[in-house]
Amino acid sequence: MTTTRANELTAVQASQAMAEGRLTSEALVSSCLERIAAREEDVRAWAFIDPAQALAQARAADALRAKGGARSPLHGMPVGIKDVIDTYDMPTEYGSPIYAGHRPAADAACVSLIRELGGVILGKTVSTEFATRHPNKTRNPHSPLHTPGGSSSGSGASVADFMVPLALGTQTSSSIIRPAAYCGVVGYKPTFGLINRAGLKFLSESLDTLGVVSRTVADAALLTESLTGLALDATPSSSAPRIGVCRTPWWDKADAATQALIDSSAARFAAAGAKVSSVALEPAFDRMNEIQIAFSSYEFFRALTHERTRHAELLSPSLTGRLAAGGKVTRAAYEAAQADTRQCMALMARHFDGCDIMLAPSTPGEAPDIEGTGEPTFGLMWTQLGLPCITVPAGKGPQGLPLGVQVIAASGNDAGLIRAAAWVERLLAAD
Amino acid sequence: MTTTRANELTAVQASQAMAEGRLTSEALVSSCLERIAAREEDVRAWAFIDPAQALAQARAADALRAKGGARSPLHGMPVGIKDVIDTYDMPTEYGSPIYAGHRPAADAACVSLIRELGGVILGKTVSTEFATRHPNKTRNPHSPLHTPGGSSSGSGASVADFMVPLALGTQTSSSIIRPAAYCGVVGYKPTFGLINRAGLKFLSESLDTLGVVSRTVADAALLTESLTGLALDATPSSSAPRIGVCRTPWWDKADAATQALIDSSAARFAAAGAKVSSVALEPAFDRMNEIQIAFSSYEFFRALTHERTRHAELLSPSLTGRLAAGGKVTRAAYEAAQADTRQCMALMARHFDGCDIMLAPSTPGEAPDIEGTGEPTFGLMWTQLGLPCITVPAGKGPQGLPLGVQVIAASGNDAGLIRAAAWVERLLAAD
Repeated sequence: MTTTRANELTAVQASQAMAEGRLTSEALVSSCLERIAAREEDVRAWAFIDPAQALAQARAADALRAKGGARSPLHGMPVGIKDVIDTYDMPTEYGSPIYAGHRPAADAACVSLIRELGGVILGKTVSTEFATRHPNKTRNPHSPLHTPGGSSSGSGASVADFMVPLALGTQTSSSIIRPAAYCGVVGYKPTFGLINRAGLKFLSESLDTLGVVSRTVADAALLTESLTGLALDATPSSSAPRIGVCRTPWWDKADAATQALIDSSAARFAAAGAKVSSVALEPAFDRMNEIQIAFSSYEFFRALTHERTRHAELLSPSLTGRLAAGGKVTRAAYEAAQADTRQCMALMARHFDGCDIMLAPSTPGEAPDIEGTGEPTFGLMWTQLGLPCITVPAGKGPQGLPLGVQVIAASGNDAGLIRAAAWVERLLAAD
Repeated sequence: MTTTRANELTAVQASQAMAEGRLTSEALVSSCLERIAAREEDVRAWAFIDPAQALAQARAADALRAKGGARSPLHGMPVGIKDVIDTYDMPTEYGSPIYAGHRPAADAACVSLIRELGGVILGKTVSTEFATRHPNKTRNPHSPLHTPGGSSSGSGASVADFMVPLALGTQTSSSIIRPAAYCGVVGYKPTFGLINRAGLKFLSESLDTLGVVSRTVADAALLTESLTGLALDATPSSSAPRIGVCRTPWWDKADAATQALIDSSAARFAAAGAKVSSVALEPAFDRMNEIQIAFSSYEFFRALTHERTRHAELLSPSLTGRLAAGGKVTRAAYEAAQADTRQCMALMARHFDGCDIMLAPSTPGEAPDIEGTGEPTFGLMWTQLGLPCITVPAGKGPQGLPLGVQVIAASGNDAGLIRAAAWVERLLAAD
C-alpha cells in the first residue's frame, strides 16, 4: 500500500486504512484533488468542485474520528455526486443552462445520508442535459476524442481516472451501465427504487434509478449498503453461479468484438465451473426497447413541462425532439407499454428460476467519438423491467478502449447480484 | 345560473360557461378572491395567495381565449395547489418553518401542465408539516373549532368553502380522503403514479400520490383527465355497479354513525339496483395498517434526512418521533412489508373480480377538534395497496359535521371508479 497513491485506493481499501489510522480523510481527499488538478483540464468530469469546501469536510471527518465518532465505513470517504442530484451547498445545474448557478434549498436524500454517515461530498460530476442523451463537456479518460458515455458522464470518467473512488449516478435507459463500461469501471444500477430518490431531478419517475460508479464491485456494495441498510456481501460466490447467457433481441447491434467477448466470457465462466445456459427470450421481448422509449418519452414530456414551456430556447435539439415525440404518446399507448412490461417482468422472473444471473453486453462496443454519448441499446430492457444490473470491466476492444460485460439478476436479488458479480470480476481480472 | 355566484359553480359548470362566453376567467377568479377575502380570516386555507398575480393570469387566459386560443377545458380555471408542490412564482414552504419564504427554481410537472392547459394557479393551499400529521393553521369551514383534516388541509377547506373549485392534494396515508370527508367535499386519490410527481416534495416515494379535491366527482375527473390524458367519463354508470361492502379490519374504529352510514348507504344502493355483497378480507389484511406505518416511516426517515440532520430544532415533536421510529425500521422489515403488500395486492385483485367497487368508511367519524388532524385509519390500507379511491359527501353526523363514504376500485381502474363514484354521488345527493 505504501506505493499506491491514496486516490488509487478502492473505497474498501481506503475505508479500512482510515479505520486503522493509516490514512486520514484529509490525505485521501487531498490526493483526489491533486489528481483532479492534474487531469481535469483534459477529462472535464466535474460540474462543480471547490477544493477548500471538500477539504473542510475531510478535516471535520478526521476530527470526529479522532474523538471516536466515526459514523460508518463511509466516514471520511469522498463521493462524487451526479449533477442531477440536489446539494444545498453546491450548485446543481442538471446539465442544462436553464439552471446555471442554481442552488437547491436542500440536499437530496442520498446526499444527506452520505453526510450523515460521515462521507465527504467531493463535488458534482457532469451530467448530460437532464440525464438525457445530449452530451456535455466530459471526455473519456482513456481517449479525449471519445465519449465517456452518458448520462452519468462525469461519474464514469472521474472514477475511471482515479479522481474519486465512488460516484453516484442515475439510470433511466443505460446511464450508469454505458458510461461505466466505456470508461472501464464498475457501474451498478440497483433494483428500481432501492436508493431513495427524494431530491433527484426526475426525468421518468417510473424508471429513474440511483446507482453507483466505482472501480470494484465491493465498492459499489459498500456505498449501496450504507445508503439502504440492505446487507450486501461482496465476497465472490463460493460456488460458481448458474449463468444464463442472454443475447437479447438486439444481439446484431453488438459489434463483433462485443459478441466475441460475451461468448469467450461465457466459456471462461463455464471452465471455472459455472453452469452456463442460453436464455431464449419469448417474442414479447422483441419490442421492449421501443416500448421503453415510448414509455419514458411520455414521462419526459410531463416531467420537463416547466422547461419545455418556459425555456424551450435553452433545450438541445435532440431533447426538444424527444419531448415532442413524448407529447404524442397517448395515455392508451403508455398503458399498453405498462401492460407489456408487466408481462415481460413475469416472463423474466421465470427465466431466473433457471439461472442466478444473466450475462449480456453492456454496450454495442467501445466508446464512440465525442460527438454523442453512445447508444443505450443494451440498457433499455433491463431498466424498463426494473432489474438490478452491473457492468464489470472486461479488457479492451480493437481500438484499445474499455469493454464491459453486464450481469443481471432477478428483481430484488441485489445481494445475489453483488456476490455473483464479484465472482465474475475475479475471473475477468485473472488475465 | 344567474342566481349562482361564480365561485359556487362547479369546475365543469364554470368551464362550460367560459367556453360559451357567459363567464370570463377574470370574473370567476374575482369571485373566488372575494370569497377568500371574506372568509380567509376564519378558514385559513391558504399558505400563499396574491390577488394581483391570480388576476393577471386570469386576464391573460381571457385574452388568449378572445383570440381563439383556449387551450383546454381547464382554460381560465382557478386551481389551488397544496404547498408541498413546487411553484416557481409563489413561495413553497412544505408546511414547515424550515422552508419559510422558499422559492423553487421550477414548477412541479402538475403545476406547469395546468398552466400549459390555460389554467390559473390561484395560490398555495395549506399543508401540514411535510404532509405529515402535525396540524397547520387551517380550520374546518363548517366549524372553526374542528380540524379540516390533513395533510391536504387547505385543499379540503378552500374547496369546501367555495374559495376555489379545484385543488391538488397529495396522499401518503389518508391525506386527500380525510380532509375531503371532514370538509364535506369530494377527494380523489388516483391509482399510484397516475399524475406525474416531478416537483413534489417527497415523504414516501413508494406511496405519495397526487390527487384532487373538488365539489363533484365530475370536477375531479376533469382535472385528472387534463393532467394525464386518461379518458375519464363522469357520467354515472348506466347500470348499477356491483358493490362489495368492505368493513376492513378496523371497523370497530369507526363510530356508530359511520358504521350506520355505511350500512344505510349499502341498503340504499341495493334498493337502487346495485348488487351488494360483503367482502371478507383474509387475515393477511389485518396487519396492513401497521405495515403501512412501518413501511412509510422507513421512507420518511430517508426522504427527510436533510431536515432531520440540519434543522431538527424546527421539526414538530410528532414528526421527530415518527422519524426516530423510521430510523429503527430495518431493511429486512421494510422488505417484509413490501412482500406482505404484494401478497395483499394480489388477494385484493381477486376480490375485485366479484365487484366493480368497494364501499368503506372514509374516516372514523366526523372531524375531531382542532388540536389534531384526525386519524388516517381508513386510508392507510388502500394507499399501501396503491388503489384508486374517492370519498363522496354523505350528509352530516351527530355533531352536524360532514361525513363521507369511500369508494375504491381495482388498481388502474380509475375510469371505472369515476363512473361508479358518480353513480354513488347521484344517489347520495337525492336526499
